[in-house]
Amino acid sequence: MSPIPDRILGIDPGLNITGYGVLDASAGRLKLVEAGVIRGRCRSSLTRRLVDIHEGLTEVIGALQPAVLALEQLYSHYNRPRTAILMGHARGVICLAGAQAGIPVVHYPSTQVKRILTGSGRATKSQMQRAIMLELGLLEPPDPPDVADALAIALCHHYLKDKPTKTKP
Amino acid sequence: MSPIPDRILGIDPGLNITGYGVLDASAGRLKLVEAGVIRGRCRSSLTRRLVDIHEGLTEVIGALQPAVLALEQLYSHYNRPRTAILMGHARGVICLAGAQAGIPVVHYPSTQVKRILTGSGRATKSQMQRAIMLELGLLEPPDPPDVADALAIALCHHYLKDKPTKTKP
Repeated sequence: MSPIPDRILGIDPGLNITGYGVLDASAGRLKLVEAGVIRGRCRSSLTRRLVDIHEGLTEVIGALQPAVLALEQLYSHYNRPRTAILMGHARGVICLAGAQAGIPVVHYPSTQVKRILTGSGRATKSQMQRAIMLELGLLEPPDPPDVADALAIALCHHYLKDKPTKTKP
Repeated sequence: MSPIPDRILGIDPGLNITGYGVLDASAGRLKLVEAGVIRGRCRSSLTRRLVDIHEGLTEVIGALQPAVLALEQLYSHYNRPRTAILMGHARGVICLAGAQAGIPVVHYPSTQVKRILTGSGRATKSQMQRAIMLELGLLEPPDPPDVADALAIALCHHYLKDKPTKTKP
């Protein structure tokens, strides 16, 4: 695989639905290449879902050849620890798929993603959707929300990619 | 790969050190085949460590051909949520390695592992080490502790493998 320069893959991890969004940022223009979701089979085991996510993402990376994979950074205050730990499993196979494809995996804090796109680290979901529509010239908000979150992280990487402090998980 | 029947791989996941222990339980005898650790490179990124764990475990599975991979079940009360979430990443790539090798991945609650080996769900680390030494006829406690924990989960699977309720993560 030879990655396409300035092509960014943003990922919003989840065991049921993992959102992805791919942007091209060449020649000063931002273009939405493709966005969608990878689904873990409902009612199947954790392990089976991880296989689905890993396979699905490997396929997306192979087809679209991004030069980087961007994710939200972990944070340590969760209301639902079990959910957060399960999500850690999904993140694990996502990071692995990126590394196996030979592309860097970078992480941004969610407050930074929000601040970059809306000016506020506490932006609501609808403010974020609106910002993404404006940035990418979309007529409708990306749906489902997992796709919007994936595009937000890809946009964040686009604006911050030359700044440091992006590699801590 | 054709798995060797009654060969059990127990895993104690960690981003720094992942312990593994392989037992043969054929013909009514328990035999320690091999035990050791897979190390994630110190000071390297989360992603790099996940690659190390996945590669190391895939190698162990390929070389020793276990018929099943056993892990401790997740639990939702953790003192250190961030550590638990990071551990989720390691567990994710471990489950994936098992599935990619075509072997079932099973999970047991830690209290059950302790109770099976010592009679008490609250056994201390040294009680567990002693139980493992006795079960496997070892002259010394397995070291580091990650190896002991991996052997404990493999032993637990041996005693419980025909019981239900072992697949919830």
